[in-house]
Amino acid sequence: MARSTARPLITLTTDFGLSDHYAGTMKCVIAGICPDAKIIDITHDVSPADLISGAYTISQAAAFSPPGTIHVIVVDPGVGTARKAIAVRSNHQTFIAPDNGVLTLAVRKGPSAARELTNPSLFLPEPSNTFHGRDIFAPSAAHLAAGDIAWESVGPELPEIVTIPELQPSRESASRWTGIVLSVDRFGNIITSFPKNLLLADNNTLSINIKSNPIDHFYSTFGEAKGPEIFAYAGSSGYLEVAINRGSAASSLDAKPGDPAVLEIHA
Amino acid sequence: MARSTARPLITLTTDFGLSDHYAGTMKCVIAGICPDAKIIDITHDVSPADLISGAYTISQAAAFSPPGTIHVIVVDPGVGTARKAIAVRSNHQTFIAPDNGVLTLAVRKGPSAARELTNPSLFLPEPSNTFHGRDIFAPSAAHLAAGDIAWESVGPELPEIVTIPELQPSRESASRWTGIVLSVDRFGNIITSFPKNLLLADNNTLSINIKSNPIDHFYSTFGEAKGPEIFAYAGSSGYLEVAINRGSAASSLDAKPGDPAVLEIHA
Amino acid sequence: MARSTARPLITLTTDFGLSDHYAGTMKCVIAGICPDAKIIDITHDVSPADLISGAYTISQAAAFSPPGTIHVIVVDPGVGTARKAIAVRSNHQTFIAPDNGVLTLAVRKGPSAARELTNPSLFLPEPSNTFHGRDIFAPSAAHLAAGDIAWESVGPELPEIVTIPELQPSRESASRWTGIVLSVDRFGNIITSFPKNLLLADNNTLSINIKSNPIDHFYSTFGEAKGPEIFAYAGSSGYLEVAINRGSAASSLDAKPGDPAVLEIHA
Repeated sequence: MARSTARPLITLTTDFGLSDHYAGTMKCVIAGICPDAKIIDITHDVSPADLISGAYTISQAAAFSPPGTIHVIVVDPGVGTARKAIAVRSNHQTFIAPDNGVLTLAVRKGPSAARELTNPSLFLPEPSNTFHGRDIFAPSAAHLAAGDIAWESVGPELPEIVTIPELQPSRESASRWTGIVLSVDRFGNIITSFPKNLLLADNNTLSINIKSNPIDHFYSTFGEAKGPEIFAYAGSSGYLEVAINRGSAASSLDAKPGDPAVLEIHA
Repeated sequence: MARSTARPLITLTTDFGLSDHYAGTMKCVIAGICPDAKIIDITHDVSPADLISGAYTISQAAAFSPPGTIHVIVVDPGVGTARKAIAVRSNHQTFIAPDNGVLTLAVRKGPSAARELTNPSLFLPEPSNTFHGRDIFAPSAAHLAAGDIAWESVGPELPEIVTIPELQPSRESASRWTGIVLSVDRFGNIITSFPKNLLLADNNTLSINIKSNPIDHFYSTFGEAKGPEIFAYAGSSGYLEVAINRGSAASSLDAKPGDPAVLEIHA
Repeated sequence: MARSTARPLITLTTDFGLSDHYAGTMKCVIAGICPDAKIIDITHDVSPADLISGAYTISQAAAFSPPGTIHVIVVDPGVGTARKAIAVRSNHQTFIAPDNGVLTLAVRKGPSAARELTNPSLFLPEPSNTFHGRDIFAPSAAHLAAGDIAWESVGPELPEIVTIPELQPSRESASRWTGIVLSVDRFGNIITSFPKNLLLADNNTLSINIKSNPIDHFYSTFGEAKGPEIFAYAGSSGYLEVAINRGSAASSLDAKPGDPAVLEIHA
């Protein structure tokens, strides 16, 4: 009988930064519980406590991860408070995170199952109040990866999980959507919350407005831009993005995650 | 007869940063010598030559690493001088580092064995004077991980290794300890060198003084803090830590690793 | 018949930074196609679009990588334009990159084979115009690592690949070479494009000039330097380097990759 030889895959997305031992120590904990696990860092540089960027980041990586992947997300301003630790299944992947909305985009189509993590055998002994990444989230993911514990035993089923409604754009009229800046990347490109199929459906008849700056040039590639103009395009993210070729649109527009954006469809 | 299938685990802690090829090249060297090794980055962003932060960092990760882990630490202001390269065993783990005190906290309970690394078959041919991470430390760890060389053959036994005494707090009187700031993390939290059991033993009767700033509120969670006040708590590090909820205690107190700290026990 | 049990090794060198999901998502793509692949980050912090630093970085890591390694390099200012995506074999390793000169130093001795990547079965479906790291380069490397596709099928043979001539120093006369700054590292050390054997051949009779600053002290180790003087040495990179002990030569000389450098050989 064939046995899969693929090792379990765990990804990590946190706001711990890379200067401290935090991300490394989480990996040591995983290696101790599930030595076979393969660990991929998505990023540890989510801005501290920035749930919007965290939600965007894990949704992008999850869309390209193989079935069976276990994603650990620790952007957790409420650590030590009553917020729940949860495990959520969606699209044949598992997400381990605080129940604070950071999974809103990753499980957009709805969880296929969600449970609160309460079984203490998932955790390190005597969890601290401040480092649940090490004491709660990493060991829970490792035990699930190792198959040490059945899904039904992790804790009680949850009828719903916390979501952040503003991550989804809203259609205010036939010609107007309101949304937000989801992310600003290293290159200064602005990722909006407007799905790119709005462009594909209405090519050349759109404009985006970010902080009172209208953007009405839409291109297919950066090379089409004429000099330092601001333009929009259907991004690799699946969203409409705004950029300046070899410049930073985010700096020019002073845009950051959470800033409001408007999409207008011209007749 | 059963054979362990766990792959050897090597961790890396350096001050090489992540912008250059240095950390990556160390991993390529390891992969060439011991292809089965699993490599975990603790951090490569120890401040250049900061032995205090390096000592703190590896001690935290080692406390959560499985038996058999080989830790490579390269914070090495004396590279190219007469300082020794050493291998130290403690608590069923192995540490490969320069002999400059960076292991003080990780092997606090004393090494179970220590040897100088002198066997040239551990090193790359013709080691450089400036990149011992690549030429000495990484290949030595990989050869030990691969089981290529017996412990007894790495080099002569060392009766003792260099330690940094100020990493341990000192009791000056029944009511007064002197110590230091061990680390400042990404969030601006200050980790002192005072073990948290001092708090557990004398709850509510302590104060910490850092750079003439007294801190006498001790909380269990960040959520207990009232606004932007500075408070202390038993940290996940095992030490007393100082923080501001959603702020940077390190910026407020202008604190950095090595700064003096005082703990007073009030009657 | 014996079968190699070593897992395929893929390295990543990009200018994507570590704050976004880009590097992590590339790894998820690789894990989905070739679950056995071991992935090593060389760096993701090449300065955006800096082909000189990218070329230097991958050449350093490749020199210490085992045979069979597949290197992915994405420093790609021309993404979305007509520049080719290529696979190059050299020294028993494979390099996957845009054809923009970033491989100049890594395959200095000439490719043993080069092909354009055109077979769509190497790519993700419907590749974006802006994230070829995820859609073209990572999956191509993973398919080659998995052995899914024969070398001959990746695309047409290329008679030559783009190179950046200024990465190689030029001998202007018996006593004068012109070159450039290849890299500035975290410590502020300046790596020039002059190979160190020029020093070994003519010890003590050289001077380097960077931005009108002559450097004529050559030492073997940093410890030989007297205080904050600027000196040169045979670097671990294989090139002549310029440094200040416990200081930043790059800041002192305001040097950056691409700046001109001159080497004079005194009679």
